[in-house]
Amino acid sequence: MMKFTAISCLLAFVVINDVMPAFTIAGGLIDMGYGSRGGSMLSASIRSKEPIQPIPISFDCDRAKIELGKKLFFEPRLSKSGWISCNSCHNLSTGGADNLPSSIGHKWLFGPINSPTVLNAKFNLAQFWDGRAKDLKEQAGGPIANPMEMASTHEIAVSVLQSIPEYVQWFKEVYGDENINIDHVTDAIAAFEETLTTPNSRFDLWLRGYDRISKLEEEGYALFKDKGCIDCHNGFGVGGNSFQKFGIVKPYDKDTQTLGRYNVTKNEKDKYVFKVPLLRNIALTAPYFHDASTWSLSEAVNIMAEYQLRIILTDNETNKIVAFLQTLTGDQPSIIFPTLPPSTSITPKPNRNELTTPDCSDADPLNYRGERIIPQTGL
Amino acid sequence: MMKFTAISCLLAFVVINDVMPAFTIAGGLIDMGYGSRGGSMLSASIRSKEPIQPIPISFDCDRAKIELGKKLFFEPRLSKSGWISCNSCHNLSTGGADNLPSSIGHKWLFGPINSPTVLNAKFNLAQFWDGRAKDLKEQAGGPIANPMEMASTHEIAVSVLQSIPEYVQWFKEVYGDENINIDHVTDAIAAFEETLTTPNSRFDLWLRGYDRISKLEEEGYALFKDKGCIDCHNGFGVGGNSFQKFGIVKPYDKDTQTLGRYNVTKNEKDKYVFKVPLLRNIALTAPYFHDASTWSLSEAVNIMAEYQLRIILTDNETNKIVAFLQTLTGDQPSIIFPTLPPSTSITPKPNRNELTTPDCSDADPLNYRGERIIPQTGL
Repeated sequence: MMKFTAISCLLAFVVINDVMPAFTIAGGLIDMGYGSRGGSMLSASIRSKEPIQPIPISFDCDRAKIELGKKLFFEPRLSKSGWISCNSCHNLSTGGADNLPSSIGHKWLFGPINSPTVLNAKFNLAQFWDGRAKDLKEQAGGPIANPMEMASTHEIAVSVLQSIPEYVQWFKEVYGDENINIDHVTDAIAAFEETLTTPNSRFDLWLRGYDRISKLEEEGYALFKDKGCIDCHNGFGVGGNSFQKFGIVKPYDKDTQTLGRYNVTKNEKDKYVFKVPLLRNIALTAPYFHDASTWSLSEAVNIMAEYQLRIILTDNETNKIVAFLQTLTGDQPSIIFPTLPPSTSITPKPNRNELTTPDCSDADPLNYRGERIIPQTGL
Repeated sequence: MMKFTAISCLLAFVVINDVMPAFTIAGGLIDMGYGSRGGSMLSASIRSKEPIQPIPISFDCDRAKIELGKKLFFEPRLSKSGWISCNSCHNLSTGGADNLPSSIGHKWLFGPINSPTVLNAKFNLAQFWDGRAKDLKEQAGGPIANPMEMASTHEIAVSVLQSIPEYVQWFKEVYGDENINIDHVTDAIAAFEETLTTPNSRFDLWLRGYDRISKLEEEGYALFKDKGCIDCHNGFGVGGNSFQKFGIVKPYDKDTQTLGRYNVTKNEKDKYVFKVPLLRNIALTAPYFHDASTWSLSEAVNIMAEYQLRIILTDNETNKIVAFLQTLTGDQPSIIFPTLPPSTSITPKPNRNELTTPDCSDADPLNYRGERIIPQTGL
């Protein structure tokens, strides 16, 4: 009995200190039991009361639908030019974003706002900075038809897919219907995007009871809570679950053109109100804010403190909070790059030259001006 | 002993009829012994005299270098805009090409010529349509610095990588040097590209002695040889191993501006001479020819017959040859999409707006005019 106990302890030790990092590197859908292993029970139990929750590691999924959604996510023929896919701006190699001030779209037009990451986007209460799409499925239809992004139409995108026998077969298998429609296209894309979570960040492991963050990082987390950052940045996504004004205690004067949630509600109170961005993997996705006004995470933290909390942080405090934020980088999705089926003689040809007639139904109505928009950051 | 023999035969049967297709689907670097298995010995031996050779299935490789090269191949920060990678125009999801008349580059400039596939490009005697790069390594440096493609410079591309500690570490591991240089960058990209072969096409399996093509397809292959296509399209790549004039027996009048190999040699005889393209996976990479003058494989076959061989094929003959060409589609590379390390505070920022000053050293000297070039196909 004594011997058995001793072995158990050793195993617990191994699990915490050696096996865990291996899991972290391997990624994937391993159910690790939500932080309830061996000797770490007690601390995990305490940490389960924290205002940030670890990202679940396993989830139910429809493999065929996700595989189809993955193909569509990487499918350049959903764009008018045949060159731009969802992944062009939500690049899964680079934190699920393009890390540009705003995205490059059809004919090198620039979007009016910084592209948010697709990683963990399922934890957002709504999609887009102004929350105009209620979920990932509704969001997925936007860029396909936005004249400044993929610049196609839902009709053409569907007819491209319908012209390719492999897609017809896959849609039939998943939706029981050979007639492809945009509803099924966006549903499949959203199903794939639902899988794009980043579990096993060092902070999540700490939340589950393992000692995976340093004293400095833990102090940063304490500051993050004490100073009030946590009031908006909490939950699974460390953000994404509320709308807030940018400039609560001091008007944000660097960008007064982008009206945010007001565009959706036409409510005066919603001017400069945005969906609070996720802080998961924030170290991977500079530049920051809807207007990409800074490339520095430290500066971003200081701006938030000043404009949202009326606080001037010391360098030491900023550094600690940044150190904490860096622990939020999780396992990036491990994805086998899809092989897409070839076009056929009836597939609509790509069109690189023509501008799409503005159709504001899917575009941001106030910011889309049918012209090249150069963000204030000038890059 | 009898029993053992019976089992051996059964195994041979299973290998040929059931296991092979499973290998084909799985892809990867499985050494299947070059068609010398069991009962198929005789026919494989006969077919080994064919003028087309099957793509080797296994090869030596430097894993660390290939992994680094893969990251660089998908690295958008090698471009001026931070948005265009090698994969943007040589998309491994779509046959290793962009399947556009010519590629879209920095600021939506169009290249002057159809982008060839990167798949099996190692079998080319030289790279680019005019063969101006002697190998994949020399080729890899071109697009990075071409003002109409990635529009960066070798100096900036290297300084981007040098600013990112993970890249510094990887280059040190592979090349023993913390100082990154363009020679090592292109060497790693080329090493990755060397792996992008597509073995196990049905035709290759047939060459190895397995009955994997139909009677119609075999008749197409017989026509392909009898009519003379085989004279230029042979070897591992079914092409790629010689330069030939486009318009041997009849001047090709659809594109008289693109001078091909003449640009390299300045030899009058080399006007309209191009590297013979690979026919591997040809069904995946419409539109066809350097000027993308047709999206139809049948029409491409007919044009070749007319302009190179002075033959008018019957519809039946064309169909059979096209059926044969479709057997050349092999296993597409199975690639885990890489995770790229984040930029740092010293990483040069992307620049979406600025045109790069023309530097013709890496660009096609005659076709690059510093202006938007719209190919004659008008798409």
